[in-house]
Amino acid sequence: MEKHIVVVGLGLIGGSIARALRGFEEYRVIGVDVSQPTLRYAVENGIVDGVEEDPVRALALGDVVFLCLHPRGIVEFMALHRDHFKAGAMVTDVCGIKGAILEGAKVLPDTVSFVGGHPMAGTEFSGIQHSLPHMFRGAHYILTPNSQSRPEHVALMERVARHMGCADVVKTTPERHDAIIAYTSQMMHIIAVSVCDDENLFQYQGFEGDSFRSCTRVAALDVPLWTQLFTMNAPALCAALEHLEDHLRQYRQVILAGEPQALADKLAFSAARKRKMNQLELDSGAVGRGD
Amino acid sequence: MEKHIVVVGLGLIGGSIARALRGFEEYRVIGVDVSQPTLRYAVENGIVDGVEEDPVRALALGDVVFLCLHPRGIVEFMALHRDHFKAGAMVTDVCGIKGAILEGAKVLPDTVSFVGGHPMAGTEFSGIQHSLPHMFRGAHYILTPNSQSRPEHVALMERVARHMGCADVVKTTPERHDAIIAYTSQMMHIIAVSVCDDENLFQYQGFEGDSFRSCTRVAALDVPLWTQLFTMNAPALCAALEHLEDHLRQYRQVILAGEPQALADKLAFSAARKRKMNQLELDSGAVGRGD
Repeated sequence: MEKHIVVVGLGLIGGSIARALRGFEEYRVIGVDVSQPTLRYAVENGIVDGVEEDPVRALALGDVVFLCLHPRGIVEFMALHRDHFKAGAMVTDVCGIKGAILEGAKVLPDTVSFVGGHPMAGTEFSGIQHSLPHMFRGAHYILTPNSQSRPEHVALMERVARHMGCADVVKTTPERHDAIIAYTSQMMHIIAVSVCDDENLFQYQGFEGDSFRSCTRVAALDVPLWTQLFTMNAPALCAALEHLEDHLRQYRQVILAGEPQALADKLAFSAARKRKMNQLELDSGAVGRGD
Repeated sequence: MEKHIVVVGLGLIGGSIARALRGFEEYRVIGVDVSQPTLRYAVENGIVDGVEEDPVRALALGDVVFLCLHPRGIVEFMALHRDHFKAGAMVTDVCGIKGAILEGAKVLPDTVSFVGGHPMAGTEFSGIQHSLPHMFRGAHYILTPNSQSRPEHVALMERVARHMGCADVVKTTPERHDAIIAYTSQMMHIIAVSVCDDENLFQYQGFEGDSFRSCTRVAALDVPLWTQLFTMNAPALCAALEHLEDHLRQYRQVILAGEPQALADKLAFSAARKRKMNQLELDSGAVGRGD
């Protein structure tokens, strides 16, 4: 019998998930969205096998359900539709924080299995029109399986990640995920917006190189999404920012002190760490293109 | 009569300059370097039309001289060879700071014209084997012409920038260049190394997305080069870093305060600035690939 993957929320990530899942095993991909133009776009561009306006009707079909809404939207959707999921279904999400999502997933009945997920890819754009079939190629797919996750569904997610072209599947706890993501993703976004807050920014046009472009690319962010992500992970993010402020201050003090050898030693230390990190990443096979 | 461009120092930038200058008007490109293997590599890979070990013999030929050494190396080269430049020659450099270079150029005799330059391109690698013919495509080429620069040589540099595929030529004073570059380039490098200083960095492997990769890419930097650049521009760089620390702290405080609307407003403000900056850059035609 035909099986169905239901993708709830056809934005940048949901659209990319749907595209990346086309042809996965024997599944048909059904897209759900509140926006008629989005559903039309998904059909006209062959992003899904079918669409369904009514989430209740879609969930009745869904053997696998991908929740691709904003964080609070995911939590609310699970509470609202707790009784509409098909018995035996696997539910997963793609959210950049996991603690609050796993907490929200507790409303789901025993008949449903939940596997928290975070494919580490994205761009600074929003909307299905920016979705990409190869968004997740080379990216890490993080899973936070727990007692709500059936082993066969964790195995299914591993096949999904492979089909999507991910570099690897990294399993961890929601707490560890949120603490690390505060540093490797959320803080990068705070750096980018902070750099753009300089009062003379626009006078710098004509003097940008790729280091500026790379560092600030993600500053053009989806404000409601990132407001939720930052707010829901505030303690870990603030701790990460404090560490960064310390490390920046240490560099500033060595530069101010005017001792080139001390500065060279400090730079050599940091540059060696970056080269080691590059090597670790190379060994893992990750070459992702977003988060 | 045949004219000659002499490129002194065939590293990442010198090698890329030589490659980008091949076929420029009626000039032959002559490479100068202290390293025999580098000269051999340049010849074997067709990076130059010819090489010359002895800078004095090369300078006797040079109608145009590109100084592509590290900052102090450029200053020392000009002092050592002040009397070896051909009468009527134009001398330029590619250094990421301009105040100290323009100061050093004062040793040059009246028979020579100097046009300070900074093509805003580069990568985190070093050496001629990483040089690229299209390194400067879409990049800003900054010039700091002064009383030592003959108008016909400024015009020549504009033709050079066009031949290299640069987006535009931006003329400014060395003081303004150094103040802005402290922010748009040097600070991006300090951010990258500071991010890599986190004591738990290697435990984050598996959780990197593109925002992390983009922000930290330049951390694997050329330590002697950047030690000089940071040291020779310390006051401007430290001022830029203090501003950044302030902006980071402001974000941290808003996140800590737990008021999502205040955070959303702040993010909307910064994101709009980034979008405006992107538009300004788009309007200028710049799409550079390094600094």
